[in-house]
Amino acid sequence: MLTFDELKSIFLDYINDNHFDEEPIGLYHPVNYLMNLPGKRIRPVACLMTANIFKEDISSALPIAYSIEMFHNFTLMHDDIMDDADLRRSNETVHIKYNVNTAILSGDLMMIMSYKHLIECCDNLVLKDKILRLFTNTAIEVCEGQQYDMDFETQDDVSISRYLLMIKLKTAVLVAATFKAGAIIGGASDEDTDNLYKYGLNLGLAFQIQDDILDTYGDQNTFGKKIGGDIVQNKKTYLYLKSLEMADKESADRLKAIYNNTDIPEVEKIKKVKLIFDNLNIKEQADKLVAELTENAMDHFNAISVPDEKLIEIKKLAEFLLKRSL
Amino acid sequence: MLTFDELKSIFLDYINDNHFDEEPIGLYHPVNYLMNLPGKRIRPVACLMTANIFKEDISSALPIAYSIEMFHNFTLMHDDIMDDADLRRSNETVHIKYNVNTAILSGDLMMIMSYKHLIECCDNLVLKDKILRLFTNTAIEVCEGQQYDMDFETQDDVSISRYLLMIKLKTAVLVAATFKAGAIIGGASDEDTDNLYKYGLNLGLAFQIQDDILDTYGDQNTFGKKIGGDIVQNKKTYLYLKSLEMADKESADRLKAIYNNTDIPEVEKIKKVKLIFDNLNIKEQADKLVAELTENAMDHFNAISVPDEKLIEIKKLAEFLLKRSL
Repeated sequence: MLTFDELKSIFLDYINDNHFDEEPIGLYHPVNYLMNLPGKRIRPVACLMTANIFKEDISSALPIAYSIEMFHNFTLMHDDIMDDADLRRSNETVHIKYNVNTAILSGDLMMIMSYKHLIECCDNLVLKDKILRLFTNTAIEVCEGQQYDMDFETQDDVSISRYLLMIKLKTAVLVAATFKAGAIIGGASDEDTDNLYKYGLNLGLAFQIQDDILDTYGDQNTFGKKIGGDIVQNKKTYLYLKSLEMADKESADRLKAIYNNTDIPEVEKIKKVKLIFDNLNIKEQADKLVAELTENAMDHFNAISVPDEKLIEIKKLAEFLLKRSL
Repeated sequence: MLTFDELKSIFLDYINDNHFDEEPIGLYHPVNYLMNLPGKRIRPVACLMTANIFKEDISSALPIAYSIEMFHNFTLMHDDIMDDADLRRSNETVHIKYNVNTAILSGDLMMIMSYKHLIECCDNLVLKDKILRLFTNTAIEVCEGQQYDMDFETQDDVSISRYLLMIKLKTAVLVAATFKAGAIIGGASDEDTDNLYKYGLNLGLAFQIQDDILDTYGDQNTFGKKIGGDIVQNKKTYLYLKSLEMADKESADRLKAIYNNTDIPEVEKIKKVKLIFDNLNIKEQADKLVAELTENAMDHFNAISVPDEKLIEIKKLAEFLLKRSL
C-alpha cells in the first residue's frame, strides 16, 4: 500500500504533467495559479488511496483524483468571489490577483476540465458512467450547499438540522464521493463502494463540526487559522446554533445581541460569546456529535470486506483528519 | 419530417416538464427564469431536426437538445455579468434581477445540469461517450472564445484571422456541435456526422459575419436590434477590422479616432464610420465572405448521404438563418 506522502508526490507530478500551456493565457494562467497553491491535497490522495485498497495499479484513478481536486478548486475560485475573500491558502484569491471576470470564466473552465478528465479516465464505459453520475449529482449538491450557506447569512432561524444539511451538501458529499469514486475505479463491490460513501459522508460531517469547535477552542499554533474568527465574523456555526437551541430566551437574546454587535472589540466579543457557550456546555455537545459521527463512519469502514492490512494507510488518514489537536 | 414549429413546440413542452421545483429556490428560480425567457430556440430545434433526418423517434435527442440550450443559457448568464449587460431578450439579466452571486452560482448549476441531461440521455454508452467528448471539447472552446473576445477589447491590433478564430470558438463550434450531436444520437455514419459538423461550423461563422453586417446595414424593422449599435459601442466587428486592414494609414487612423471618440453624437458617429466603410467597399467584402462560408456550408450539406426529401426542413432552417433581410 502506498503511503499518504507517496500518493501526494505521485499526484503532484500528475498536476505538473497537466500544466496548462494553452492559449489564451488569460484563461489558463489563473487555473495553473490556483491548482499550484500549496495544499494538503487530502481529497485527491484519499481517492487514490481508496482505489489502492482494491487495486495495485492506480493509474486510472489519477485523472479522477485530478478531476475532484480541479472541481474543488473551481468551487473555491467562485466561492471566494461570492464571499468577497482576499486570501486563499495565504495567497491572493484569483479575483483579487486578476479580476472578477477572470475568476468567473477560469472557474467555468475548471468545471469543464474536471469533466474532461473524468471522461478520459479509462476505457471501461460502465465504470465511467457510474463515476460521471456520482460526480454530477455531487456537484449539484455542492451548489445547493453553497446556496443554503449564503441563504443562512440573512436568516435568523436556522435550525440544527438545516445546518447539518448545509454542511452535508457543501462539504461532506464531495468527501463521500471522493472515497466512492476511488472504490468504483478500484473495482470494489457495490456493498464496499456504498460503505465507503457513507464512511466519507460521516467523516466529512465530523470534520466540519470539528472545524467549528477548533475555530473557538483550538490551539492557535496547530489550527492554522485565527482562533475566534467565526465569532468575530458572526458565522452561524454549530456552536452558535446549538447554543440558541439550548439557551433560555434571555440567554439566546443576549447571545444574538453580542454576536451581531459590530462595535464591540474582537477580544471582548470572543470572550463574552465563549462564556455563553461554556455556560451551556456547548463544547461537550459538539464533541459528542463528532464522536457519534466518527463512530458512524467507523461502522461503515469496518464493514468493508478487505483484509485489515490493506486499510492501514486509510485509517491513518482518518485519524489525521479527526484528531487535530484541540 | 417534423417542421421547425412542431419541434419547437415539443421542445418547449420538454422544458416545461423539466421545470425546477427543488430547494433551495434561490438557486433554482433564476434557472427557470432564464430558460423560460422567449427565444427562437434555434440550437435545440436544429439538434432535434438533425436527429430526425436519421431517425423517426427523437425522444433520445430531447435531453441532448435541452442540454445544449441549458449550456448556451449558462454562458449567457455568466457572459452578461462579464459584459455588464442589463437586458437579455428584452428582460432583466439574472445578475440585475437577482444579484451577481446568484448569477454565478445558478450559472454553475446550469453547466452541471447540462451534463446531467447528457449523462441521462440514453443507455447506449458508446454514443453517449462520443457526445460527452464532443460537448466537453466544445465547452472548452466556448470559454476560450469568450476570453479572446474580452482580450480583444483592450487590444489595438486584432487581425482578421484572430477575429475569425474568436467567433469560431465563441459561437460557431456550439452550432457545429449541435448538428453533430443530433447526427450522433440519430445514428448517422461518421462521414455524415463529420459533414454536419462542418456544415454547422461554416453556417455559424456566416451567421456571425451576417450579424456584423446587419448591425450596420440592416433594416431597423426586421433586425430587432438598434442599427449602428456596434459602432456606437466601439465593437471590433468584421467590418471595422477589415476596414483597418484595407485602409491606408491615414484612413485607418481616422477610423480609429472616430471609433474611440466618446464625445461625438451617436448619429454622427455612425454616419462618419459608415462613410469610411463605404469608401472601402467593406460591405461587399463582408458579403463575399458570407457567400463563401455559405458555399462551404452547402458543400458539406450536399455531401450528406440521405434522400433529399429528408433534408427539406433543415434546408428551410439554414435559409431562415442566412437570408435575414438586409
